[in-house]
Amino acid sequence: MTKVRATNITWHEGHVNRQDREKLLGQKGVTIWFTGLSGSGKSTIAFTVEHALVERGHLAYVLDGDNIRHGLNKNLGFSAQDREENIRRIGEVARLFADTGTITLTSFISPYRKDRDQVRKIHEEAGLPFVEVMVDVPIDVCEQRDPKGLYKKARAALAEGKGMGFTGVDDPYEEPLSPEIQLDNHNIKLEEAAGVVLDYLESKGLLPQLNNS
Amino acid sequence: MTKVRATNITWHEGHVNRQDREKLLGQKGVTIWFTGLSGSGKSTIAFTVEHALVERGHLAYVLDGDNIRHGLNKNLGFSAQDREENIRRIGEVARLFADTGTITLTSFISPYRKDRDQVRKIHEEAGLPFVEVMVDVPIDVCEQRDPKGLYKKARAALAEGKGMGFTGVDDPYEEPLSPEIQLDNHNIKLEEAAGVVLDYLESKGLLPQLNNS
Repeated sequence: MTKVRATNITWHEGHVNRQDREKLLGQKGVTIWFTGLSGSGKSTIAFTVEHALVERGHLAYVLDGDNIRHGLNKNLGFSAQDREENIRRIGEVARLFADTGTITLTSFISPYRKDRDQVRKIHEEAGLPFVEVMVDVPIDVCEQRDPKGLYKKARAALAEGKGMGFTGVDDPYEEPLSPEIQLDNHNIKLEEAAGVVLDYLESKGLLPQLNNS
Repeated sequence: MTKVRATNITWHEGHVNRQDREKLLGQKGVTIWFTGLSGSGKSTIAFTVEHALVERGHLAYVLDGDNIRHGLNKNLGFSAQDREENIRRIGEVARLFADTGTITLTSFISPYRKDRDQVRKIHEEAGLPFVEVMVDVPIDVCEQRDPKGLYKKARAALAEGKGMGFTGVDDPYEEPLSPEIQLDNHNIKLEEAAGVVLDYLESKGLLPQLNNS
């Protein structure tokens, strides 16, 4: 048996609770759920908020297609069933992240209201704040931006009679009925959009007050 | 548009990287993967280590059956395929947790070598340390402890010809060939077992030095 050096520790078997971790981090665990069309700017805003939070000394993390679709959800496709399971798993992971005290930002189209509402429900049941952010940009603007060429691909597929179920083209986007934050991301600057999210967190006591002096 | 108060922030669109978060937390992201038979004491050790880490000011979190089987993996059963998917998902979540800089502890029987090795692989590919902890207790001792009455249930099922594929009874446990830590959890105290894990983290530079003065 290795000789143990850590002899002056007070040992506890019980679970550490969320409040202990939040106290350690000086912040509250929360999930900030960005929803909106492809090209609406969800990820850009989420990463900007993340960066501002980390600069202020807060632990924040973005879950997005890059780190989820190639890992946890790489065995899911785009059928209705798989889309539902995609959002379900992301919601469960966000809940775990928020339970650590991390400010968790998710950036997924998440087009179906019932799937988002289910994620909200598991957060509420766990006593965790859930902030739904609707990133609102008219579809024609998103389609003009088309940063990944996905709309073009979807329109081409549709013209050939091979619909791919792309949100806004041949699959519905169901707008949130009462999101915590409604962001018009068409006529404002990125900094303003990100600032609205930070202000919201502050106003709800989820962050220590910003120093604007 | 809401008037934005957060006017003095330097905005960055780029992703925050792991090193930024690790600097913020004063620790390294790592996954500590406990494996062993039911009743071997994996969870008890994991929670004891978690508690000691949080008391020392470190962010640590245990993923175990309680927070995974009722959430993320509630749609999985105990077939061979589902067991593999169970460990795969947990491995992916652990990788995400470790990427935030969190000291992530997982407590699952995880009986199959190839599943554990796959989790190790995705950590190595992400440049994240992976510490496999074999919690070694003879099966007859685990079966005598039987804290949840699972061995009794499994033996009864087997006697009735309805095997449930319980690890150690009618399903194999494949021991790690070269775990980072091999814990004989039969003849030592809980404090010693937890201390071995803490000492290992310290010795590998994953934690600031323990103060044993």
